[in-house]
Amino acid sequence: MLNNFKKSFLILSPRYFNNFSIRSLCTKPFYKVPKAVNAKVTQRKSLEKQVQITKKFKQRLSDYYRTMATPEIEAKLAPLRAAVKEYADIIRELKSNNAPQNDVAKAVVELKARKKKLEDAEIELMPKDAAFDRPKLEDLLKRRFFYDQSFAIYGGVSGLYDYGPMGCALKQNMLQLWRKHFIIEDSMLEVECSMLTPAPVFKASGHVDRFVDWMVKDVKTGECFRADHLIKNHAEKIKADKKSNAQLKAELDDILNRLDGFDNNDMQNVIAKYNFKSPITGNDLTEPQAFNLMFPTEIGPTGDFKAYLRPETAQGIFVNFKRLLEFNAGKLPFASAQIGAGFRNEISPRQGLIRVREFTMCEIEHFVDPANKEYPKFKKVKDTVLNLYSADAQMDGKSFTPMSIGEAVAKGIVDNETLGYYMARTHLYMLMVGVDGTKLRFRQHMANEMAHYAKDCWDAEVLTSYGWIECAGHADRSCYDLNQHSNATNVKLVAEKKLDAPKTISGLEIVPNKAIIGKNYKKTSKEILAKLSALTIDDIKKVEETLNESNEYTIETTDGNATLTKDMITVKPFEKTVHVEEIVPSVIEPSFGIGRIMYAVLEHSFRTREGDEQRNFLELPPALAPIKCSILPISSNERFEPLIDAIVHLISTYGLTYKIDDSAGSIGRRYARTDEIGIPFGVTVDFESEKEPHTVTLRHAASTEQVRLELDVVGEVIHKLCTSRYTWDDVKKQFPLFTSEQK
Amino acid sequence: MLNNFKKSFLILSPRYFNNFSIRSLCTKPFYKVPKAVNAKVTQRKSLEKQVQITKKFKQRLSDYYRTMATPEIEAKLAPLRAAVKEYADIIRELKSNNAPQNDVAKAVVELKARKKKLEDAEIELMPKDAAFDRPKLEDLLKRRFFYDQSFAIYGGVSGLYDYGPMGCALKQNMLQLWRKHFIIEDSMLEVECSMLTPAPVFKASGHVDRFVDWMVKDVKTGECFRADHLIKNHAEKIKADKKSNAQLKAELDDILNRLDGFDNNDMQNVIAKYNFKSPITGNDLTEPQAFNLMFPTEIGPTGDFKAYLRPETAQGIFVNFKRLLEFNAGKLPFASAQIGAGFRNEISPRQGLIRVREFTMCEIEHFVDPANKEYPKFKKVKDTVLNLYSADAQMDGKSFTPMSIGEAVAKGIVDNETLGYYMARTHLYMLMVGVDGTKLRFRQHMANEMAHYAKDCWDAEVLTSYGWIECAGHADRSCYDLNQHSNATNVKLVAEKKLDAPKTISGLEIVPNKAIIGKNYKKTSKEILAKLSALTIDDIKKVEETLNESNEYTIETTDGNATLTKDMITVKPFEKTVHVEEIVPSVIEPSFGIGRIMYAVLEHSFRTREGDEQRNFLELPPALAPIKCSILPISSNERFEPLIDAIVHLISTYGLTYKIDDSAGSIGRRYARTDEIGIPFGVTVDFESEKEPHTVTLRHAASTEQVRLELDVVGEVIHKLCTSRYTWDDVKKQFPLFTSEQK
Repeated sequence: MLNNFKKSFLILSPRYFNNFSIRSLCTKPFYKVPKAVNAKVTQRKSLEKQVQITKKFKQRLSDYYRTMATPEIEAKLAPLRAAVKEYADIIRELKSNNAPQNDVAKAVVELKARKKKLEDAEIELMPKDAAFDRPKLEDLLKRRFFYDQSFAIYGGVSGLYDYGPMGCALKQNMLQLWRKHFIIEDSMLEVECSMLTPAPVFKASGHVDRFVDWMVKDVKTGECFRADHLIKNHAEKIKADKKSNAQLKAELDDILNRLDGFDNNDMQNVIAKYNFKSPITGNDLTEPQAFNLMFPTEIGPTGDFKAYLRPETAQGIFVNFKRLLEFNAGKLPFASAQIGAGFRNEISPRQGLIRVREFTMCEIEHFVDPANKEYPKFKKVKDTVLNLYSADAQMDGKSFTPMSIGEAVAKGIVDNETLGYYMARTHLYMLMVGVDGTKLRFRQHMANEMAHYAKDCWDAEVLTSYGWIECAGHADRSCYDLNQHSNATNVKLVAEKKLDAPKTISGLEIVPNKAIIGKNYKKTSKEILAKLSALTIDDIKKVEETLNESNEYTIETTDGNATLTKDMITVKPFEKTVHVEEIVPSVIEPSFGIGRIMYAVLEHSFRTREGDEQRNFLELPPALAPIKCSILPISSNERFEPLIDAIVHLISTYGLTYKIDDSAGSIGRRYARTDEIGIPFGVTVDFESEKEPHTVTLRHAASTEQVRLELDVVGEVIHKLCTSRYTWDDVKKQFPLFTSEQK
Repeated sequence: MLNNFKKSFLILSPRYFNNFSIRSLCTKPFYKVPKAVNAKVTQRKSLEKQVQITKKFKQRLSDYYRTMATPEIEAKLAPLRAAVKEYADIIRELKSNNAPQNDVAKAVVELKARKKKLEDAEIELMPKDAAFDRPKLEDLLKRRFFYDQSFAIYGGVSGLYDYGPMGCALKQNMLQLWRKHFIIEDSMLEVECSMLTPAPVFKASGHVDRFVDWMVKDVKTGECFRADHLIKNHAEKIKADKKSNAQLKAELDDILNRLDGFDNNDMQNVIAKYNFKSPITGNDLTEPQAFNLMFPTEIGPTGDFKAYLRPETAQGIFVNFKRLLEFNAGKLPFASAQIGAGFRNEISPRQGLIRVREFTMCEIEHFVDPANKEYPKFKKVKDTVLNLYSADAQMDGKSFTPMSIGEAVAKGIVDNETLGYYMARTHLYMLMVGVDGTKLRFRQHMANEMAHYAKDCWDAEVLTSYGWIECAGHADRSCYDLNQHSNATNVKLVAEKKLDAPKTISGLEIVPNKAIIGKNYKKTSKEILAKLSALTIDDIKKVEETLNESNEYTIETTDGNATLTKDMITVKPFEKTVHVEEIVPSVIEPSFGIGRIMYAVLEHSFRTREGDEQRNFLELPPALAPIKCSILPISSNERFEPLIDAIVHLISTYGLTYKIDDSAGSIGRRYARTDEIGIPFGVTVDFESEKEPHTVTLRHAASTEQVRLELDVVGEVIHKLCTSRYTWDDVKKQFPLFTSEQK
């Protein structure tokens, strides 16, 4: 999970925040005031205003997919695409000639810079009329308490959000659908592991050493800035300054294009060359220092048991591998899944739900024989068409291509059936929860993006007003994780694979005399025995030689060297027949950030009522809607109460959530209020309802159409609509349309 | 949430662990080895063995309720009950005579000691044949991976558990039932708040100062011990020593009885008097020091933003009070609920799921007008009979009494309808998830157990092999929490209450000239204005006097004193008519520890098959069972496959979970395997099944009875059984019984 997900989380440079005050770079002010007076809250608000989006920005956002299809725009992009391809060809040539690593790396930096130019142009060329009004959506989400900043009365904390009743129900519904779609349908082994995790676990996984961002500090005040953000903001400030000369601007442009690929030395060179200082104090800055993104803590009172809050849920599954394999009766393949919280101590989080410090992940670890990644259920999804954006397409400056996953696996574009199966399942899940399929693509990692151990990685990316954001990763991580934990603990994490035919193995083995070793080396003897049993045949041959030459063999232990004599160990040949072999399974890992998907769904379901710019609403899939149905009496007359009670009873029978709005507002205003929080259906009780048999109207929020039906069937009809057994068209065919002035 | 829950968490003294090695007291060894060799795991196991339960202990555990009813036992307990009552009377008399606080406190300590003697006798007198075999249950839960110690391959961490597929599904089902029973049925506002919490929030709530345990340290090595555990273990060791004299033993008995009520000074006196040393090294110990049970961390890179992992979810609701009130259109009462993780850094956790460092809580905060705690829905539950164990009954040495909640509220035993409503709802939830109603009681806190601000508290306690454990608390916390956060932030946390009639208010007010103050005091002016607006009428009178005398008034600010002159502030009388008044709502808080309830349910549903001691199984309520149904072909013949596919399809249509076991074992052995993990129903395909119309047998695991029915209806029947629409008796009436040798 480490490099891929992490990296792409970081790649999302917030390039739309040009107008954001440089102050925001500073990580200190985001939470300072233990006793916040209201004044402070006001100040925070005015800061927030600065983040709001410029007109230019609004115009950029749009139906990307449709846009890319117009020939006019493609003509303008052609030279940029060619420029990317040019470097891709150079890299391929360098690689085939086994050119020095350094030359390849340089060429990759240039390739990335050209890719970024192309991407910027793509967004720049979007039609100006298809803008998305993010502030309007954000206003709705805040006002109706979908989610909001945590601890606001205490001044708030960046990157932490509380979900209100609407957001909480929406998220719960997304998670339940996820559980049903992935865990239940594929009989995965669900686990729930501890979030508190001992440091050695993350030492083994690589997080302690490599899960870092680079930051610089004000040498006098100690204030911290994320190094790449600092460079970006300084460079943009200079570029915006009319006094800056053209050559300097061009240099900085080049730096901005390359920034994503910079390491700490590259960044230090830029900071030194342009003499960048602290934006707050003007003081000098330290060189970039690694800052680990895990939250540290301690378990127990002694202070010497270091732990971290997990930055991902995956490790909990890996350390339970033995138990899970046993639960699965020792058989491969099997998948284990976990839904839970992850924590990342971002240096200065922004972008709302896209980059947060505490988040819910859904992760699957599919353990499979490395020699056979075929998947029986693959045939069920093979005709699913995905927008595939392969590494080759990216290298060549092309756009993504719709292709069936069956074809992609057959052509070797996607490495294997198991990986392909999960990509298709993710695609189906995304559509089910309301992601717009034209704004969904699967982008393959290029060789230089992947960790060395990864075989193939595809990110499900969704186009939002923040650009393409990674919402789910699909990685074939080979056997890296199990090996790391096995090496760290000396516990074998392997599965047994039945051989096609029994095999005779011959070799050399060391037979230790445990009694004598134990007597001589006491508590060290266990370590000695473990080391002896870990020796390879070649090692054993050397031991034999040494023993024969000098009658003893010396082995290193944590308590110093131990000398083993011939009475302690004997080397002898052996031969045995085996029916199974031990294999370390490969891991294929689909990993989802639920907050990001939820945000994307909210953007894609946000609508404005035709002819009324002020009336916004959410068109959520009924299965996902926090509240399935509103119940509105046409007036607040008491005589409607028995009818409302009857409706509540019918609706509750089907376990549907509802909201009664019998307030004094006009029915139209009340409809608008329920539309805003994405209630898909509304039951209205009017004066006609009192006549027997009692009838009500049922309103479809997306179209504002209404039908009249008997009260008795209303629960069943809504239930069928919410479980995809009925479409609205089915309902219209069965019941007479009802026309009302109020929509 | 603070004192009540916390306290009762601590009260559970692990008195059954007499044989547990004193070494386990030491908090250091529980996680030490970054690179654990298998040897370590073995060592841990042998430690675990020592925890296993003595014969004596097994015999104590039983059907407490039934036992208490026998006259023989009651006769033996009578003098002990009288002894408790004697001191209760003394305390009542002391209080009515306004005796010194100190005298009352002393009498309370004696009362508690006598109560403990009574409780010990109650457990001692249980019939020896109704023992509960905890090791057998624990073996099952571990072997079938319901849950197990986290990070075991790294040596494990005390108090952290991972839930495997069975435990995870069981817990999910419990949480979904909780959500449906409480949140959905009562239209509560569900929220999901951050776990990472800034320190000032817990400073205000009281956790930073008071959420502590007392520990002592080895003066040389720094090893930590929980002070009460240390005393308990030393005292028991001395008592067990044949050489100890009778008087010493009696003294120590007395200390053990009083230990729960000891403060740090009492414990220090004991440690000094008996010269207790470190059980590991024999070194001297420090005086008891407070150890805060919250896990500390830091947000952001600077190191000066202190935060904690929340020890409860409640504070997240309180700090969102304003948003929630607004969401509820400003109306009281309303309830908000949260399901989420809490963290407590226990010094040395034991007792499995009962005391853990990371756990799932479900909390409700019901906000209500302090002057009116009636609850309209109370009438729906008023006839629910609960086992009430009132403070008076406890004082008088009595047992609990079954009583309807309506009667309890009418008699003033339970303080108000809202509190009573939630107690009844909790009772219903507990029965629904499988808690044995005869082992469930509601115990009222005695005055000396409650925090000063709490009005009335009742714990739902469940009898398990660990004794009576608190599984849910119900506290009327008055307006403490909202006031604390309001004071800390200067943000008003109030609701508006409509007055019966408009009211005219007259008084004095200060009218500030904001322009002049702003000009003179710049950024401090906001603080000045806030302070002026917070002045009471008496304060304002003083300001007026001072102004008249000296033409100026001085106010303290964080930037020093500010002098206000007559052109800056004017004091004038005002009169206005108000229609509403501001009130700080009372909070009624039901709070559930899901892990504890789950453990209690597992104990109460653990059964041994009659006539076969080796065959244990779980009789879980079908709604709760991780897997609803097993599918077993009578033999692994390929020709059954189409039938199995058809059954899977039917069962999946109803969203039911299933497990196919087509392994080679005998059908009886396979039944036993499915019974063990609490699968309530089993579908068996036999040779008869092949005949058209296809039939299968349906097995009821609890009774091992089977019926034969048509394959087509099997999904619907199981679905109805799992949603309480059918009982097994209903099924038996409809379909012919099938008899088989294999059960």
